[in-house]
Amino acid sequence: MPGRIEFQTEPARYRHWKLNFHGELAELIMDVSESATLFAGYQLKLNSYDLGVDIELADAIQRLRFEHPEVRVVVLKSGKDRVFCAGANIRMLAGSSHAHKVNFCKFTNETRNAMEDASEASGQKYICAVRGTAAGGGYELALATDYILLADDGNSTVALPELPLLAVLAGTGGLTRVTDKRKVRRDLADAFCTTEEGVKGARAVKWRLVDQTVPNSKFDQAVKEVATKLAARSDRPTAAKGISLTPIERKLEADAVTYSSLKVEIERDVRRATVTVLGPGGDAPVSIDAMLEQGAQFWPLRLARELDDAILHMRLNEPDIGVLIFKSQGEPAQVLDYDGFLVGNAGHWLVREVLHYWKRVLKRVDLTARSLVALVEPGSCFVGTLAELVFAADRALMLIGCFEGDNRKPATLALSALNFGGYPMCNGLTRLATRFLGEPESVAKAKAELGTPLGAEGCDSLGLVTTVLDHIDWHDELRIFLEERSAFSGDALTGMEANLRCPGPETMETKIFGRLTAWQNWIFQRPNATGAEGALKRYGSGVKANFDTGRV
Amino acid sequence: MPGRIEFQTEPARYRHWKLNFHGELAELIMDVSESATLFAGYQLKLNSYDLGVDIELADAIQRLRFEHPEVRVVVLKSGKDRVFCAGANIRMLAGSSHAHKVNFCKFTNETRNAMEDASEASGQKYICAVRGTAAGGGYELALATDYILLADDGNSTVALPELPLLAVLAGTGGLTRVTDKRKVRRDLADAFCTTEEGVKGARAVKWRLVDQTVPNSKFDQAVKEVATKLAARSDRPTAAKGISLTPIERKLEADAVTYSSLKVEIERDVRRATVTVLGPGGDAPVSIDAMLEQGAQFWPLRLARELDDAILHMRLNEPDIGVLIFKSQGEPAQVLDYDGFLVGNAGHWLVREVLHYWKRVLKRVDLTARSLVALVEPGSCFVGTLAELVFAADRALMLIGCFEGDNRKPATLALSALNFGGYPMCNGLTRLATRFLGEPESVAKAKAELGTPLGAEGCDSLGLVTTVLDHIDWHDELRIFLEERSAFSGDALTGMEANLRCPGPETMETKIFGRLTAWQNWIFQRPNATGAEGALKRYGSGVKANFDTGRV
Repeated sequence: MPGRIEFQTEPARYRHWKLNFHGELAELIMDVSESATLFAGYQLKLNSYDLGVDIELADAIQRLRFEHPEVRVVVLKSGKDRVFCAGANIRMLAGSSHAHKVNFCKFTNETRNAMEDASEASGQKYICAVRGTAAGGGYELALATDYILLADDGNSTVALPELPLLAVLAGTGGLTRVTDKRKVRRDLADAFCTTEEGVKGARAVKWRLVDQTVPNSKFDQAVKEVATKLAARSDRPTAAKGISLTPIERKLEADAVTYSSLKVEIERDVRRATVTVLGPGGDAPVSIDAMLEQGAQFWPLRLARELDDAILHMRLNEPDIGVLIFKSQGEPAQVLDYDGFLVGNAGHWLVREVLHYWKRVLKRVDLTARSLVALVEPGSCFVGTLAELVFAADRALMLIGCFEGDNRKPATLALSALNFGGYPMCNGLTRLATRFLGEPESVAKAKAELGTPLGAEGCDSLGLVTTVLDHIDWHDELRIFLEERSAFSGDALTGMEANLRCPGPETMETKIFGRLTAWQNWIFQRPNATGAEGALKRYGSGVKANFDTGRV
Repeated sequence: MPGRIEFQTEPARYRHWKLNFHGELAELIMDVSESATLFAGYQLKLNSYDLGVDIELADAIQRLRFEHPEVRVVVLKSGKDRVFCAGANIRMLAGSSHAHKVNFCKFTNETRNAMEDASEASGQKYICAVRGTAAGGGYELALATDYILLADDGNSTVALPELPLLAVLAGTGGLTRVTDKRKVRRDLADAFCTTEEGVKGARAVKWRLVDQTVPNSKFDQAVKEVATKLAARSDRPTAAKGISLTPIERKLEADAVTYSSLKVEIERDVRRATVTVLGPGGDAPVSIDAMLEQGAQFWPLRLARELDDAILHMRLNEPDIGVLIFKSQGEPAQVLDYDGFLVGNAGHWLVREVLHYWKRVLKRVDLTARSLVALVEPGSCFVGTLAELVFAADRALMLIGCFEGDNRKPATLALSALNFGGYPMCNGLTRLATRFLGEPESVAKAKAELGTPLGAEGCDSLGLVTTVLDHIDWHDELRIFLEERSAFSGDALTGMEANLRCPGPETMETKIFGRLTAWQNWIFQRPNATGAEGALKRYGSGVKANFDTGRV
């Protein structure tokens, strides 16, 4: 099993990917280094991947958006001769804990969603050029792109062989994208997903599995033609210069992680961590140029990157911490000022990237399988963008008045325009619309208070927090609540939160994280997959798996 | 564990429920007999239930529709003094296999959906009158009704204590109905679902958990008022006389179940069963009166009841059979004639009931965790309603021409108007619209052939079957396919089918069966719930469960 997993990287340190730039076109080349694995016990043969490979991919996708506004089309291809990508490494899966498997799948799903978000939200289109075999997670990668070209060379195939080969699902969005994105007919999807060797050539097009199949001799030309066509439809900026996503500064201690605008304090004995978000410490830049000058130090971007890193660190490296408590510290007016800057400049390419990045980070929070609690206390600055953390929480407590001996003003919370459309959840709705599914008029009531600092009573009557308490009750009630929460089964909480956090409409994303993931997690527990005689364990041993044939 | 489970019952044999009729009003009274359990090892205290109790409830709901067209409102109440219903019996769950738990939950979910279907599709409204505690499945029962009244007596509460008490979910639709039907605010839903003692009185109304709370002295009057109001909105027929759902005739042998219009033949060595549906054997009745005369013998109703019974029998009593093969035998023109009768008389109350019953039975087929295969061969009658079985199948094979030495005409398949709206799936779409999500024009092309007998080539070009084969290839290809299918992990197939069968839009039903169920199944496998030191196992022992505190 891996030691501490690092989510920060940069192209100069990539082991598995190469980026080439040709004006509006970029090539993202998967060329996995067999021995550069995240932990011992497997080799990344045939362009198979582990979490380490996917962390680099996520980084590349992110940098393509921020550092390369000129790139309109990204061509995803393989650096190997006869294989596109063999998917998630099976020996890695077989050697992983249940928790690692689940978190690995979640992250890879988020990475594939990030590719789709780049296309949909930011005009940066993805084309997948498949030469050789795209199997399992390899085909799932392709599915996340806008257009799949498959070489018609008698060798190149797409396949989801998980079920016949490993007794698990194509769980990185595969099944869902086959049915809901590519809209493959369900009996053909059944045939495809039970055929280990996959489908190639004209049949792959007929079955809607790929968009086009092209002979080898004309393959590069065809890719170029598609790229040109997609580039013409992109609304990426012209003549913009990217910013550099400079390394995040972070101090890691035994029970704390400290960033420039965020700190995480861990209380191991009670299995809780407090995530305190720090306000900007000043007003928003006076101009777009001033923001560009700040680059990655622009507070909303800096905080989003730090929060993203902190959440991933907690997910993968701190599995025993069951509750994340969100607090904030800062000047509410300054946060409101920054939100105003973002809204006022939403048409600028970099502001658009920052807003969509916040959207993705907040979705990452929603999808984190820990209980989320927000505490709104004096000195806090839960305003607009930061108030989304309150609405993302399973419970939010707000103090009425002050703590004894604390002369700071009572806490307030304020809404900005970004709470009403800036950061849709996976279900396509804002957190406030999701919150008030049963009483849509409450969204309008909240909107009428845009920008107003709302005290505890105001937040209570608007339904923006769960509980308001004065200082006499605060500590005891909070202690009892947190103790109770820690005493519950983490698994049951995970299942409950997965159901309660995402009511209302469903999208491909909610189906991937709600339905496909839950079935995959179930299957990851079944002896047929992960038991001593299961398919994952026995893969490559030459001995066939031994299945319990009963159906449940 | 239970022996063979019987799904057929009738009011005279009920042990747990009472039905009282007062004109347009019926009372459905839950009064569980503690000792009348389905298997040994538990007692049904406090109006808790097992599958046996729910089988009677499903029967009552069904009879209320067919036998009592005059009933417009059903009041669901408890026959016990201080408890409404304590939910699924915990010792029963603790003593059940994983497969039984999963199938128990599925059936109870279908039963609750049947209550909602009675209200929505058939104007028979349900009111829940809660006096005493409605906990877990007890509150889930209430959630399935149109209107919940809660006595305001300091004692009556609603609760979903599964998570704190048992480390599992409120899995019979509970979590989903709280968020998506009652639209409870998500942080309040979190508070509710983690509060063992539940919520009562005014807070239960404020949180949207119940519709009304009424002092004991005025309770019966309030129930009556609501009933009168709902009855006035019902479109149930006036002056109609119900039909009697006479006992289904069935012969049970070691490897066969034979009904009047259906037979099931089991091949245990290869873990397959063939379900052969028999056509009507004559034309449709000449008039509504003739149909009423036939009553439960009216072929579409008789077959629906027999198919329903057969599917449930296979699910619960034959867990080792992994593949169900659907065949049909009969005269296509007669099936088309019956469909014409149903469409032509769709406004009649009994025809409406028959159509909606077929809708529910077909959903039951969709939700059956076995691989479904349809074989369209000479002598078959997959027409209209029966063709839905072909579209429900994971794969459909059709013979081109004839078998050698068989002088029957080549197989045909035909569509009726019922394939285009009569039987929506859980996702709200027809099976054909679901099938052709990616090519909606194919639905129109199929519709243009309404009533036309379509041979193998026609079905192939319209995309109505998966594969067409001549007699030279048929037996080998079929054998190989079935052998492969039997060799796969049943768990992986269950997960795959749960994802592929239901693409497109999501509804409360798909969320219950896709998302909530999958998480519950996962949790049912986790040591925190079902391990030796888990909450389900230790419930009532006085020893607290011992939880693995890690999060996945």
